[in-house]
Amino acid sequence: MEPNLTDPVQLTAELIRCPSVTPDEGGALVLLQDVLTQAGFDCTRVDRGETANLYARWGAKGEARSFGFNGHTDVVPVGDAAAWSQPPFSANVVDGVMYGRGTTDMKSGVAAFAAAAVDFVRDTPPEGAIILAITGDEEGPATDGTVALLDWMADQQEAMSVCLVGEPTCPNEMGEMMKIGRRGSLTAYFTATGVQGHVAYPHRALNPVPALARLMDRLSSHVLDEGTDHFDPSTLAVTTFDTGNPATNVIPADCRATVNIRFNDAHTPDSLTAWLQQQVDQISAEMGVQITTEISVSGDSFVTPPGAFVDLVANAVQAETGRVPELSTSGGTSDARFMKNHCPVVEFGLVGKTMHQVDERVEVAQIEQLKAIYTRILQDYFA
Amino acid sequence: MEPNLTDPVQLTAELIRCPSVTPDEGGALVLLQDVLTQAGFDCTRVDRGETANLYARWGAKGEARSFGFNGHTDVVPVGDAAAWSQPPFSANVVDGVMYGRGTTDMKSGVAAFAAAAVDFVRDTPPEGAIILAITGDEEGPATDGTVALLDWMADQQEAMSVCLVGEPTCPNEMGEMMKIGRRGSLTAYFTATGVQGHVAYPHRALNPVPALARLMDRLSSHVLDEGTDHFDPSTLAVTTFDTGNPATNVIPADCRATVNIRFNDAHTPDSLTAWLQQQVDQISAEMGVQITTEISVSGDSFVTPPGAFVDLVANAVQAETGRVPELSTSGGTSDARFMKNHCPVVEFGLVGKTMHQVDERVEVAQIEQLKAIYTRILQDYFA
Ligand SMILES: [Zn+2]
Ligand SMILES: [Zn+2]
Repeated sequence: MEPNLTDPVQLTAELIRCPSVTPDEGGALVLLQDVLTQAGFDCTRVDRGETANLYARWGAKGEARSFGFNGHTDVVPVGDAAAWSQPPFSANVVDGVMYGRGTTDMKSGVAAFAAAAVDFVRDTPPEGAIILAITGDEEGPATDGTVALLDWMADQQEAMSVCLVGEPTCPNEMGEMMKIGRRGSLTAYFTATGVQGHVAYPHRALNPVPALARLMDRLSSHVLDEGTDHFDPSTLAVTTFDTGNPATNVIPADCRATVNIRFNDAHTPDSLTAWLQQQVDQISAEMGVQITTEISVSGDSFVTPPGAFVDLVANAVQAETGRVPELSTSGGTSDARFMKNHCPVVEFGLVGKTMHQVDERVEVAQIEQLKAIYTRILQDYFA
Repeated sequence: MEPNLTDPVQLTAELIRCPSVTPDEGGALVLLQDVLTQAGFDCTRVDRGETANLYARWGAKGEARSFGFNGHTDVVPVGDAAAWSQPPFSANVVDGVMYGRGTTDMKSGVAAFAAAAVDFVRDTPPEGAIILAITGDEEGPATDGTVALLDWMADQQEAMSVCLVGEPTCPNEMGEMMKIGRRGSLTAYFTATGVQGHVAYPHRALNPVPALARLMDRLSSHVLDEGTDHFDPSTLAVTTFDTGNPATNVIPADCRATVNIRFNDAHTPDSLTAWLQQQVDQISAEMGVQITTEISVSGDSFVTPPGAFVDLVANAVQAETGRVPELSTSGGTSDARFMKNHCPVVEFGLVGKTMHQVDERVEVAQIEQLKAIYTRILQDYFA
C-alpha cells in the first residue's frame, strides 16, 4: 500500500528513511517537492554550493498575508549505530514511539507543517499565501541553507509576512515552551605571543601563558549582564587554551585560547568586540605580552516581542495542549537567526529531549498533535 | 701522525669526532679509558642501563686527600646539520676556533681536566688521589649517569674529598664566573577536571579552564622570594596549558598545565609542594573544580659556601685569566646536584655561549687556558 503522505506520521516515516545527513539531500526534499507539487504548491529547488533547498508557495506571489514555515530536513550523523535499539533510518514504531535520526530534529516538524499546509489549502483555501522554506543544511555550516533561500527570495521578490520555525522547542512536555528569540553567538580566538626560552633563564624569555591565563580569568569572572526582559543572562565560556608545548623545561613562544559568548539583547557583536579588545589591551599593558584577537559572529541576538503573532501561536498551542507555553529565548542557535532579518519569527515544535542522541525518538501522537497546532495557527492567521 | 692525546686541544678534537649523542657512548669513554690507563690511572667502566660511565683513579683508594673531577662526554643532538658552517663532528678549526657538537659542553672540559691530571701525576706525583668520574648521560634522563657512578663509589668505598665539575660556567669571557651551587628544579603537573557540556548550556557543564587559568595567574604572580645570600630570586614558569579540545562550542571536561620552579635555598621541595597544594585547594574551593597535582623534583637547591675550596678554585682562575670569578648559583641544573651529596662541589669551565646551538664552538686558546687553570688547581690543592 502506498503511504498517505499527507498523514504527518507516514510522511515523517518516509522522511526518516531518507538518509539526509548534512550535506546529503538523501531524497527528503525530492519527496517533499513531490507531495507539495501535487497539492498545488509552486515549488523551486534553491540549491547553492553543496546544499539543496526547497521553496514552496501556495497562492500568488505578493499576497498581503503570507504565512511562512521554515525547517530543515538534514540531520546530524547517527553516532554509534550499534547503540541504537532500532536502525537509525528505519522509523520503526515501538509502543507508539517512532525511532530514527530526525524524528524530533526535525523531520516530524517539517512533515507536520507540510501536512497541515496541504490539508488547509485543500479544505479552506485562504486569502493569501502559504510558504514553506525548507533547507538541507541547518546542522552544518548553514552558509548555503536558509541564507540561500532568503537571498533567492529577495531576488525574486518573494516574501513572508510572518514565519514559524518548526524546530523542537519543548524541553519535556508537549506545548510547554515556544521560542520568541535567540541569544547571539560570538567566538573570539586569542593568540598571545611572547619570547621562547629555557625555564632556567626566564628573564631572557617572555612567557605568554600567564597573560593569557589572566585574560581568561578576567573574562570568565566578568558578569556580562543580569538578564533582560526576554532573556536569561548572557554567558561566556572558555572552550580552548593550548600551548602545544612538548617540553616542560621550555617557555613557549605563544599560546592560544578560544572564548564563546552567548549574548542577549543587552549586547551587540560590536559592543562585545569593543569590550574584549579593552580587556586584551589592559592585559597587554599589564604583562607586556602581545595578544591578537579574531572575532567570528555566528548570530546576533534577536527577539520577536510579545504581540499579535506571538499570541496567535501561544493561543493555538494552549488550545491543543492545554498548556500555556513559556515565551523563551534560551538554547542554542537555529535558522530563526536568519529568518528574523526577513519578518517576525517564532519557533514552536516537539519535545527535543532526544535530539542529536542515540535512539532519537518521538511519540507518534505528538506528531499528530503538532499538525493540529500548525493547522489551528493557519486557521487563526487567515481567519 | 698519531694525535698527542695529552694535548687538550688534540684530545678535544678526537672526542668531538666520537658521535656520542646521548645515550650513545660513541667511542668517547673508550678513548679516555685508553689515555688514562696508559697514564697509570686505575679505570673501571661503571655502565648501568643504557648508560656508559667511566671511573678513573690515580693513587690509592682511601687517600685522605682525593681530588675529584666530574664531567660528561655525551652531547645533545646536532639539530639542523645543514645549518652548521662546519660538520658537527669534524672538530674543524677555522681562525683559531674549533667547531663541533660538544666543543663547549663539555668535551673540551673533560679533555682539559684529563690532560691536566695526566701531566700532573707524571710530573709531580701528589700525595693523595686524583679521581675522574665521567658519565655518558648528563644531557638525557641522567638516572644512570653520575648517580650510577656515585652508587658504585659508595659500594666500593671510593671517595672524593672535593669535586670540580668541568661544565662551561662563563657567560662571555673566560674566567668571569664559577658556580658554587645551583638552584633546585621542581615540576608540577596540574589536571583540572570539570563536566563537559555545550556552550549554549553552560549551567549544565562545569568549565575547568577558568579555574586552571586563575591558578596559573596566581602562581605566576606570586613572588617566591627576593633572593638569598648566594642565590638570585627563585623563579616559576608556566610551560604548558592545554585543553586539546577540537570543538569551540564544547566546554571541555578537563585541562592540564605544567609549572616549573627553579628555587633557591629559601625553599625545599616539601615547602614548595605544600605551598602549591594550598594554592590548589584555595582555587578548588573558589571555583568548585577538582584539581590534581603531581610533583616531580629533579634537583634540590644546594650551595658550597665560600671557604677554602671555593677560594682555591677562584684564586687559580684569577691567576690564569686575570679575572676574579663571580661566585654564581645561576643557570640550569648539572650533575653538581648529585655530586653535592658526596662532597663539596664547585663548577668551573669554558664560555658556554654556544652550547646546544648550531655551530657550537670554542677558541682553541681557551682549551689550553682551561687546562692551565685545572693544573694550577691540582698544584694548589696538593701543595
Ligand atoms: Zn534542528
Ligand atoms: Zn653539560
